[in-house]
Amino acid sequence: MSKTPIIILNYKTYTESTGKNAVQLSKYVQEASEESGINMAIAPQAVDLYPIISEVDIPVYSQHMDAITPGGHTGSTLPEAIKETGVTGTLINHSEQRLTIADIDSIVEKTKEMELTSVLCTNNVKTSAAAASFNPDYIAIEPPELIGTGIPVSQANPEIVENTVEEIHKINKEINVLCGAGISTGEDMKAALELGSQGVLLASGIIKADDQKQALLDLVSLI
Amino acid sequence: MSKTPIIILNYKTYTESTGKNAVQLSKYVQEASEESGINMAIAPQAVDLYPIISEVDIPVYSQHMDAITPGGHTGSTLPEAIKETGVTGTLINHSEQRLTIADIDSIVEKTKEMELTSVLCTNNVKTSAAAASFNPDYIAIEPPELIGTGIPVSQANPEIVENTVEEIHKINKEINVLCGAGISTGEDMKAALELGSQGVLLASGIIKADDQKQALLDLVSLI
Amino acid sequence: MSKTPIIILNYKTYTESTGKNAVQLSKYVQEASEESGINMAIAPQAVDLYPIISEVDIPVYSQHMDAITPGGHTGSTLPEAIKETGVTGTLINHSEQRLTIADIDSIVEKTKEMELTSVLCTNNVKTSAAAASFNPDYIAIEPPELIGTGIPVSQANPEIVENTVEEIHKINKEINVLCGAGISTGEDMKAALELGSQGVLLASGIIKADDQKQALLDLVSLI
Amino acid sequence: MSKTPIIILNYKTYTESTGKNAVQLSKYVQEASEESGINMAIAPQAVDLYPIISEVDIPVYSQHMDAITPGGHTGSTLPEAIKETGVTGTLINHSEQRLTIADIDSIVEKTKEMELTSVLCTNNVKTSAAAASFNPDYIAIEPPELIGTGIPVSQANPEIVENTVEEIHKINKEINVLCGAGISTGEDMKAALELGSQGVLLASGIIKADDQKQALLDLVSLI
Repeated sequence: MSKTPIIILNYKTYTESTGKNAVQLSKYVQEASEESGINMAIAPQAVDLYPIISEVDIPVYSQHMDAITPGGHTGSTLPEAIKETGVTGTLINHSEQRLTIADIDSIVEKTKEMELTSVLCTNNVKTSAAAASFNPDYIAIEPPELIGTGIPVSQANPEIVENTVEEIHKINKEINVLCGAGISTGEDMKAALELGSQGVLLASGIIKADDQKQALLDLVSLI
Repeated sequence: MSKTPIIILNYKTYTESTGKNAVQLSKYVQEASEESGINMAIAPQAVDLYPIISEVDIPVYSQHMDAITPGGHTGSTLPEAIKETGVTGTLINHSEQRLTIADIDSIVEKTKEMELTSVLCTNNVKTSAAAASFNPDYIAIEPPELIGTGIPVSQANPEIVENTVEEIHKINKEINVLCGAGISTGEDMKAALELGSQGVLLASGIIKADDQKQALLDLVSLI
Repeated sequence: MSKTPIIILNYKTYTESTGKNAVQLSKYVQEASEESGINMAIAPQAVDLYPIISEVDIPVYSQHMDAITPGGHTGSTLPEAIKETGVTGTLINHSEQRLTIADIDSIVEKTKEMELTSVLCTNNVKTSAAAASFNPDYIAIEPPELIGTGIPVSQANPEIVENTVEEIHKINKEINVLCGAGISTGEDMKAALELGSQGVLLASGIIKADDQKQALLDLVSLI
Repeated sequence: MSKTPIIILNYKTYTESTGKNAVQLSKYVQEASEESGINMAIAPQAVDLYPIISEVDIPVYSQHMDAITPGGHTGSTLPEAIKETGVTGTLINHSEQRLTIADIDSIVEKTKEMELTSVLCTNNVKTSAAAASFNPDYIAIEPPELIGTGIPVSQANPEIVENTVEEIHKINKEINVLCGAGISTGEDMKAALELGSQGVLLASGIIKADDQKQALLDLVSLI
C-alpha cells in the first residue's frame, strides 16, 4: 500500500453522485488524480459499481458490506458479490452504517481473505484504538459532530487526529489513518497530513461543489 | 399489468445467482420464458442490476429499496439509483428484509411516483389485508414457516392462499396475489394458480437446481 | 371499553417522568383524573412499572413490547413480564419504536391473548387504515412532522384526523381513534374530540410543564 | 472490586426468571451465595429490577442500557432510569443485544460517570482485545457457537479463554475476565478459573435446572 497521501471520495447517496452522474464524477476524479499526481479513490453506491469500474482506472471502494455468507439474505450486500465487481476495497462501519463489534471483526477478516483493502471508520480516539485490534488497512476517524458542518476536524479538534494516530500506532504501526468530517479546502487537507494522517475521507465538500474537478484540484493544491 | 401467470425468481444472495452466475442464470430465465410463453421476471442483487439489464430482455426487479431520499446515507439503497438501472419494479418487505409500516407506505408511494411495479411481501392473511391498504401492484404471501422447506404453501396450507386473495380483493380487486415459500414443481405452480393467485415468487427451488432452465420449464409444464 | 374521552400520557424517557419523578407524576395524573372526572392513563418506562402500579389506581400502559416468546432474549421486553406487572395495556409501534408489519400483527395478537388493551400508533391516514386490519383497541395517529412542535395536529391538519377516523371505521367501527403530536392546551383537546377522535396521546406538553397537574386540568377544561 | 471468583446469572427472558419467579430465584441465589461464600450476582429483566432489589441483598445488574440521554425515546432503556433502581452495574453488548462500537464506547463511559460496574460481552479473542480499549470492569467472553449447547467453553476451546485473558491483560491488567457459554457444572466452573478467568456468566444451565439453588451449589462445589 502506498505511503503517499490518499483521498477517498465517498459518494454516499447524493443525486450528484448517482447513476450517470456517478460515472461522470468518477471521470473527473481520475482526471484530477492524473493532473495532480495524488492518489484519489472513490466509494460509489453498490448498484453503480459495475458501470463505474468499466469506465475508470482508479481505486474503487464499496461503501458497505453485510456480515453475511452466500445464502438467503434478500436485499443485503454480499461481500463476494462486491468483490466480483473488481473493487479495490470497502468502507466498513461508516457513521451512516454502523456495525456491531462482532460484525466489524467478521468483515475485516473477510476483506483479508478476499484480498480487499479495508477502511474502517471510527468516531473518536477510543473507538479508533479498539478498531486497531482488528488490523484494518486504514482507520478513518470522523468526529460525528463535525460531519457536514464545513468545519474541518483538522482545525476544530487537531488533537483528536494526533491522539488517534498515536493510539493506533501503539497497537499497530502499519495501520494508516485517514481523517474526515468537514474537510473541503487545500488548507484542511494540508493540516490533516501535518497532524499525522495519511489522507482524507470526504464527501459533500467535493460532491456538492459547482465544479467537482476543480474542487479536487484545490483540495490537493497545497501538498 | 398482465393478468396472465407470472413467475418472479428472487436471486437472494446465493453463489449460483451472483455476478457472472447471475448474468448466466438471467439468460436461462429469458430462454425458459420464451420457450414456454410464460411471463418470468427476476430479482437480482442491487450490485448486479446493470450487467444483467444490459444482457437480457425480461422484467427485472430490485430486491429492496431503503426509505430514503438523496443525501447522506452511506451504504443504503437509494430508490432513484435503482430506478436509473432500468428496473421494472422492486420487492418490498421481503421476510429477509422486513420494514416498518411507515417505511412500507413511503416506499410503495415512491414506486408509484417513479412508475415502478411494487411487489409487497407479507407473511399471513392479516398482514396481507393490511398491505392491501397501500395499493401495491402485487402482494406476495410467504408463510415464513414454509420458506426453504420444499413443502409448498399451496399444499401445506391452501386456505391461507385462498383467504389472502379473498381479504385483499375485499379492499382492492386490482391487486394481484403471488404466493411463495416451498414452491418448486409444476404441481405446486398449478395449485398456486387454482387457489386464486396470479403466480409465484420463488428462489432456492430453481436457483439450487442442477439444471436451472429445466427446473423453470418443469415449473410451468402443467399450466 | 369506555366511549368517554381518554387521555394517555406517554412518559417517554424524560427526567421528569423517570423513577421517583415518575411515581410523583403518576399521583398528579390520578388527582387530575379524579378532580376532572376524565379518564387519564399513563405509559411509563418498563423499569418503572412496578413501583408506579403499587402507588396509583389509574390505567397504566407499557410503552413497548418486543415480539418475542419466553427464552434467550437478553435485554428485550417480554410481553409476559409486562403483563405480570398488572398493566392495563401497551403502546405498540410508537414513532420512536417502530416495528415491522409482521411484528405488529404478532404483538396485537399477543395483547388479545393476554387480555391487554392495545394502542397501535400510526403516522398518516394510509398506515392507519392498514393498522385497522389488526383490530387493535385504539389507533393513535401522530403525524411525525408535528411531534414536539407545539403545533397541534387538530389545528395544523384537521382533515388528517377526520380522514383517519373515517378510513378506520370503514374497516372496523369498534376501533377508537386517539390523536397525538403537538397537543397541549384545552383548545387542542376540544378540537381533537370534535374531529371525531376519542382522546389524545401526549407527552412533553404535560411532562415539561412547570405544574404538571395544572397542565392536565387545563387540557380537559373545555370538554 | 473483589478478585475472588464471581458468578453472574443472566436471567434473560425465561419464564422461570420472570416476575414472581424472578424474585424467588433471586432469593435462591442469595442463599446459595451465603451458604457457599462465593460471590453471586444476577441480571434480571429491566421490568423486574425494583421488586428484586427490594427483596434481596446481592449485586444486581441490568441486562442492557440504550445509548440514549433523557428525552423522547419511547420504549428504550434509559441508563439513568436503570441507575435509580439501585443496580450495581449492567451487562453491555450481550450476544442477544449487540451494539455498535460507538454505542459501546458511549455506554461504558456512562457507567463510569454513574459509578456502575460494566460487564462488556464479546465473542472471540479479537473482539475482546478491542473491548479492552474501553476499560470496562469485566469482559465476558462467550463464543456464540457454544451458547446453549451444554458444551462448556472451558472444555471445547480452552485456549480461547487463555488467549483472551492474555490479550486483554496486554492492554489493561485491571480488567477481569469472565467466561460464558455452555457452563453448568462444578467441573466447568473450576476449569474456567484455572484458565485464568475470574468467574462465569451463565443462564440456562441454572435457570432451567429442576433445583436452581442446588445447581448453583454444585457449580461452586469444586472451588
